[in-house]
Amino acid sequence: MMQLPIEYLTPEAFAPFGEVISTDTARDTYKINQGTTTRFHDISRVDVGDEGGAPIISIFRGTPRPKPIEIKMMERHPLGSQAFIPLAGQKFLIVVASGTETPKPEDLRAFLSDGTQGVTYAKNVWHHPLLVLEEDSDFLIVDRTGPGNNLNEVELPLVDGEVITLDWA
Amino acid sequence: MMQLPIEYLTPEAFAPFGEVISTDTARDTYKINQGTTTRFHDISRVDVGDEGGAPIISIFRGTPRPKPIEIKMMERHPLGSQAFIPLAGQKFLIVVASGTETPKPEDLRAFLSDGTQGVTYAKNVWHHPLLVLEEDSDFLIVDRTGPGNNLNEVELPLVDGEVITLDWA
Repeated sequence: MMQLPIEYLTPEAFAPFGEVISTDTARDTYKINQGTTTRFHDISRVDVGDEGGAPIISIFRGTPRPKPIEIKMMERHPLGSQAFIPLAGQKFLIVVASGTETPKPEDLRAFLSDGTQGVTYAKNVWHHPLLVLEEDSDFLIVDRTGPGNNLNEVELPLVDGEVITLDWA
Repeated sequence: MMQLPIEYLTPEAFAPFGEVISTDTARDTYKINQGTTTRFHDISRVDVGDEGGAPIISIFRGTPRPKPIEIKMMERHPLGSQAFIPLAGQKFLIVVASGTETPKPEDLRAFLSDGTQGVTYAKNVWHHPLLVLEEDSDFLIVDRTGPGNNLNEVELPLVDGEVITLDWA
């Protein structure tokens, strides 16, 4: 049985897949609003303009999957980035894969957000659909609307006849 | 002394100024991710493309101002919308003004978000800088980067020699 190790989410580890969204990852930080507000500026780019796309804001409300979580498929958005930001400081899991071919089991990486961190999946990066740890787990989403096919899905191969899983204590 | 009444934030009341961001204001709602996720789809548009602008994600961390809050100035962004979403379900205050001229006191409206609601200020809508009710109050911001001047600020006139204020029990 292949069980994916879960890594802590850091900007460096996640760099091949996109950007970590947190106050630690701002390109610049400064005071605004008569000194009452700190702007953590330009944390993540929204890259959705290909083929007439436009950025939109949505909310995803997730439900946990049974443990161990079975990683049977991945998806990607060839026309745009997609950002996920937890709306209640809740932790969540992230599974991504490097490369543009159908992911091989050894391409997969799993990360745990500490709840202060969101992520932007870069355009065309394979990722698993939302994996939450709590009931009614809300996330703000910034992604793309517009013409064209912006979703590819792929089934993952079995490893020694078994599904890849994600588990934790 | 002119004290602004504080209204509950509703999509209808806020329509002249922009959009309310909540699960109630999605243009469409449907299940995704093998039925594990509800997508509250296309809640708010991000309108930042004028003059070569691009969307970016930032975080604002606000500090409360002394009560009663003095509403002495307003600002607007002539080249792009600006969205504010509370990251810990916290309530916050919003002051906006109708029209494109320097706001008159009677043009001002104040709203209270219930904490599940964010707002998008439409392009060129006068609004007061962030007004928070708690220490270290974090908001996700989706606004514009790019060339051009995207900030106008204006001082508000006194009313009978006094500053306009915002107060509550």
